[in-house]
Amino acid sequence: MQSTFSPITFNKTEIKLLNQTLLPRIEEYEVYSDYLDMTDAIKKLKVRGAPLIGIAAAYGISAALNTHSASSLIELLEFYKKLRFAFYQTRPTAKNLFYALDRLDKVVENPNISSVDQLRESIEAEAIQIHKEDELSCLKIAENAANTLFNKKDNYTFLTHCNTGSLATGGIGTALGIIKYLHNQGKNIHVYVDETRPLLQGARLTAWELHKERIPYTLITDNMAAQIMKNHHIDAVVVGADRITKNGDSANKIGTFQLAIVASYFNVPFYIVAPKTTFDTSLITGDEIEIEIRDDLEVTRFNGIESAPIRSKSENYAFDVTPNNLISGIVTEDGVYFSPYKFCDK
Amino acid sequence: MQSTFSPITFNKTEIKLLNQTLLPRIEEYEVYSDYLDMTDAIKKLKVRGAPLIGIAAAYGISAALNTHSASSLIELLEFYKKLRFAFYQTRPTAKNLFYALDRLDKVVENPNISSVDQLRESIEAEAIQIHKEDELSCLKIAENAANTLFNKKDNYTFLTHCNTGSLATGGIGTALGIIKYLHNQGKNIHVYVDETRPLLQGARLTAWELHKERIPYTLITDNMAAQIMKNHHIDAVVVGADRITKNGDSANKIGTFQLAIVASYFNVPFYIVAPKTTFDTSLITGDEIEIEIRDDLEVTRFNGIESAPIRSKSENYAFDVTPNNLISGIVTEDGVYFSPYKFCDK
Repeated sequence: MQSTFSPITFNKTEIKLLNQTLLPRIEEYEVYSDYLDMTDAIKKLKVRGAPLIGIAAAYGISAALNTHSASSLIELLEFYKKLRFAFYQTRPTAKNLFYALDRLDKVVENPNISSVDQLRESIEAEAIQIHKEDELSCLKIAENAANTLFNKKDNYTFLTHCNTGSLATGGIGTALGIIKYLHNQGKNIHVYVDETRPLLQGARLTAWELHKERIPYTLITDNMAAQIMKNHHIDAVVVGADRITKNGDSANKIGTFQLAIVASYFNVPFYIVAPKTTFDTSLITGDEIEIEIRDDLEVTRFNGIESAPIRSKSENYAFDVTPNNLISGIVTEDGVYFSPYKFCDK
Repeated sequence: MQSTFSPITFNKTEIKLLNQTLLPRIEEYEVYSDYLDMTDAIKKLKVRGAPLIGIAAAYGISAALNTHSASSLIELLEFYKKLRFAFYQTRPTAKNLFYALDRLDKVVENPNISSVDQLRESIEAEAIQIHKEDELSCLKIAENAANTLFNKKDNYTFLTHCNTGSLATGGIGTALGIIKYLHNQGKNIHVYVDETRPLLQGARLTAWELHKERIPYTLITDNMAAQIMKNHHIDAVVVGADRITKNGDSANKIGTFQLAIVASYFNVPFYIVAPKTTFDTSLITGDEIEIEIRDDLEVTRFNGIESAPIRSKSENYAFDVTPNNLISGIVTEDGVYFSPYKFCDK
């Protein structure tokens, strides 16, 4: 099972990105070669989704190394440090970005690499490998969920938040990947899609993917979840994650925590779905996760139009942390984990 | 303590409405004389808020009777029936509309009324009286809350949903009225304002009123409430109501139920604030309340701009019902009620 489109493609010195800020109205691919443009694309969410940010950073660094006119390995290694720092600084919460940078670091630290070309080729191979592994993880995640959690009947109704599909990963997606996989198995699937304010990744991106895949969905505002759970049978809430700590606490798009509280109130199973690249076992609990704070204007405006009085202040947390006790299970490529969560350092 | 502006003024044959759909960017007053235009203004939420809908309907009927060229009482009574039906059909959930119609019915049924002019004058007096009583109720509600619930300290932080201020009532407001009253007492008040999708009454209207009153506020998306309650001390959630049943179950703007669940999770007191005109003791529980369903386009668009793929379906419940067990107290002009709620038929 493959994704029907790719939000990112890489060709040595160029990266082609589907500009996600313009969806669903405009499907525009942009070509990037400059690494500063690429970091800017990540900051502005032209490319987003925890696993995809890692892939985008790896490709961004590889493309920059491939175009840099370094005459010596030392010079290229210096440039790598600069690149690494630029991508490191883009967005703080998604672990997958730092996982990808660590993978590239290991290549750079390999004492067997002795030439400029060798470094370029090795980094390129590693970036492609990170992408491939994520594609495979998505598939494994979906298989694991289909075989263990959603194998009892032919009809499933899900509620999801933000976007966790092909637009967020290197493959079919995480939470949305499960939904696509079950639909592909011939099951009768219906999805309630939280619009996911402030940037509407649910309305703009998840609805767009479901529309493309012809999977029936109903769009709701984020504050309707309780009413939907009261009026309809929801089999499970499935969401992604940006960082998961040792004890299972999971950072994800703002609103996830609130949704988990509501799911718990209605006894609706609440699953976090993420590849192992999202896990940060250096952190014991979610309190240690750095939560990105974004511009107030995302809350006070939409599509450039003010929805509140000018100079209104906001607190624009881009993420929140769902505590482990609200999580029914964490679905990964290695299997489904249940409480008590005790993720190890490897 | 008076409201600094009026969203509705009445002068025998004309009603001047502040068009709330254009706020906060445009402050435009529109003059209505035709009753069909007036029912349309209610349906389109140019005038909204449970108590204000009742007042608007009463004024709309009075203006129509005052302009109608009936030559006989029988003819004018026939026209009244037509008017009543037109306003009755505008919006189903807010009890205050039907309360106002019932009040006018009692005038019409008065056997002492024997002339066209007498009917016109009596209806006009009743409509003005309904407005005045609501203004007084708002003040009494605020006094009751200030004297019993919020009299222990000088600083209070509230979280509120939708708009319950002067734009929703005939006076200073219900939940927002309390906030204004405490601010007016010199207390240090901060308000977290849910933007209230899909129609953004929080961002557009509540923020506008707080801005006018110079009361400090922070605008948040509806899905941030849990994160805010985790990171800040919130003294209470205060919201309005559109209909309250015998057992205390309360219909209010979509998202209120979800907010009550979240408040309960954090042990934050959750108060419903409403005048007695909102109570419907003919209904035993909230399950009996008719919930208005509005156009999908309100959800699939944001400020008039498509935010989701075209033809996306939605379930646009305009209201939900908060069950009595999630309500810490119901604040009315008669005092504050606590669980178990047993509201009588009068």
